Amino acid sequence: MRALVTLLTDFGTCDGYVAQIKGAILSHAPDASIIDVSHDIVPQDVTHARFVLGRYWRRFPPGTVHLVVVDPGVGTARAALAVEADHRVLLGPDNGVLSAALGVDGARAVALAVPRGASPTFHGRDVFAPAVAAITMGTPITQLGVPVDAPLCLRWPEPVSDERGRLTGEVIVIDRFGNAITNLPGPSRPARVSLDATELPVCRVYADVEPGQPLALTGSSGCVEIAVREGSAARRFGLRRGTRVVLIPQATA
Amino acid sequence: MRALVTLLTDFGTCDGYVAQIKGAILSHAPDASIIDVSHDIVPQDVTHARFVLGRYWRRFPPGTVHLVVVDPGVGTARAALAVEADHRVLLGPDNGVLSAALGVDGARAVALAVPRGASPTFHGRDVFAPAVAAITMGTPITQLGVPVDAPLCLRWPEPVSDERGRLTGEVIVIDRFGNAITNLPGPSRPARVSLDATELPVCRVYADVEPGQPLALTGSSGCVEIAVREGSAARRFGLRRGTRVVLIPQATA
Amino acid sequence: MRALVTLLTDFGTCDGYVAQIKGAILSHAPDASIIDVSHDIVPQDVTHARFVLGRYWRRFPPGTVHLVVVDPGVGTARAALAVEADHRVLLGPDNGVLSAALGVDGARAVALAVPRGASPTFHGRDVFAPAVAAITMGTPITQLGVPVDAPLCLRWPEPVSDERGRLTGEVIVIDRFGNAITNLPGPSRPARVSLDATELPVCRVYADVEPGQPLALTGSSGCVEIAVREGSAARRFGLRRGTRVVLIPQATA
Repeated sequence: MRALVTLLTDFGTCDGYVAQIKGAILSHAPDASIIDVSHDIVPQDVTHARFVLGRYWRRFPPGTVHLVVVDPGVGTARAALAVEADHRVLLGPDNGVLSAALGVDGARAVALAVPRGASPTFHGRDVFAPAVAAITMGTPITQLGVPVDAPLCLRWPEPVSDERGRLTGEVIVIDRFGNAITNLPGPSRPARVSLDATELPVCRVYADVEPGQPLALTGSSGCVEIAVREGSAARRFGLRRGTRVVLIPQATA
Repeated sequence: MRALVTLLTDFGTCDGYVAQIKGAILSHAPDASIIDVSHDIVPQDVTHARFVLGRYWRRFPPGTVHLVVVDPGVGTARAALAVEADHRVLLGPDNGVLSAALGVDGARAVALAVPRGASPTFHGRDVFAPAVAAITMGTPITQLGVPVDAPLCLRWPEPVSDERGRLTGEVIVIDRFGNAITNLPGPSRPARVSLDATELPVCRVYADVEPGQPLALTGSSGCVEIAVREGSAARRFGLRRGTRVVLIPQATA
Repeated sequence: MRALVTLLTDFGTCDGYVAQIKGAILSHAPDASIIDVSHDIVPQDVTHARFVLGRYWRRFPPGTVHLVVVDPGVGTARAALAVEADHRVLLGPDNGVLSAALGVDGARAVALAVPRGASPTFHGRDVFAPAVAAITMGTPITQLGVPVDAPLCLRWPEPVSDERGRLTGEVIVIDRFGNAITNLPGPSRPARVSLDATELPVCRVYADVEPGQPLALTGSSGCVEIAVREGSAARRFGLRRGTRVVLIPQATA
């Protein structure tokens, strides 16, 4: 089976940085199949990239190699990691962006050796791409660097429950539609969601309300989202990462 | 021959929705070759996606599977379709977006079964992607759902001719350059085009006028377009979908 | 080995122009592997596309076919080129965009024949794509057109040195981060860079200064760049193509 390689970066495509990475991978591993996840991460937004990687890395088949280059500290002492977790390999800087995989039982990480002559500002091309190619050709990560004991592994905040069964959480990420994704688990019973000055029912689908109307629902990742049908909840309610959201179970008569 | 799968969505790439679809397809059909058409359709703009699909679906080789996810009604009673037409298979919601294929002689459609546990807000990942994978592995669409008698099949408005040989049509779509594409067939003889307060000659290429100057021409789909060389006709003339445009044959002396 | 084809255009993706090119290539060469470089070049920005192509074309393996469609003169007398250089083939209009390859020793160019019925406004689909497919199937470029003696081959301006060892160059391109890439070679000794009213040290990496602070560094292409850490140097200093930048060697005590 051909090797699958996915790419997630904040490089945009129009300056040729991503093309150089693709060329470097394919020069060493010409049969690799490269899948673009995105190159439109907001520059340096490690948190968003971390969230997005968590959504997809295990949905690709075992053996997939995932490269993530969102790397404000490129060229500093931060390690360039290769991580083996759940039969996939992930590469990216040691800045927390790979946390979704690092938090998995049995995950192992190495700090990649930096080749002589590597550009200090473009490890994507000169450090990560050659490592991706080597891995797709069968090189174990342990031959590419030295073990790292405690790579930065961040966790999302946990919601907090009170004695009345309310769960207080927060917005974790805003998506491109303006939906605000929270850390609140989708409720299995009727519930509503309280923002500062607004309460919203937890619906099933966007079309449960009229266009332009706000709602909450259990998103496709299993967490509560605040949305406006065919609009932006982030703009409507001024939501941002960290905005407090409370999940209130519905009184059953 | 490997299976070709094209993707057209309004998801953007930066939130990982498309990556989840790609992962779901490749998990079941690891040899499929996935081609990105676009993920930058304006959210919920079914009309634009319908137009774009019409441009490319038959330009790919027989056997290609085209997935279109622009789906404001996701999770409602609208069917998730698989359509067989002219030796290709197309998948997308029953909201008219697949009309280009549904209008073809011999087209057949089924409503895909929704798997247990599918997220009601993400049929792209949980309904369409597994169906795409099954189809690329050789499963006939009739095994994936029940026939649909009358899927929504929309047609573009027809231009209307008058006794003087004038043809009145309208703008169908604005492209990213600000070109306004009409439903008027490209004329085979000299002609001009009338907007509200402006008349433009029908030229052959953009460079027939100076930079910044407006023109009409027969676009690459065979229809009349209004353009501004190295500029935006939509902005210049306030054009939008439905703006009336008249094609006037040139008096021959 | 499968054929690799890269695409660089200013079409955007949302109107289906690129999809038609992909379909046309794959219809004739179904096993070609298509790599997106970018479709987000600013419309008609030949200079930027020329710069970007220079960055990546030799980083792909020998045998790769690179298609560039940034073509304001489409349909005019300008030739549609296929160029063989350093074991790769490049296709694009004769407007200078292929200069990086045309400047290489032993480069050969032909003017592609324009097939009957080709749309005068869409050579990407009707002239270049069929040629790309033929080349990936083994057709030599000399069978696809007639030799061109003097295709337009542009060079970047050269920096000028003075008697004090100062080197005066200019900004060549602004990237999407707002970094200004100059034609000044990265210095091997300590140096600083002078803009109109500002002097900046030449650092090693972005993280050598605090977030929001400006710096110069040797970029990944080996040239001096002006940057603002986690910000835009172009906006901060009003930099644009052609802005004068002076490299000043550091006095060594």
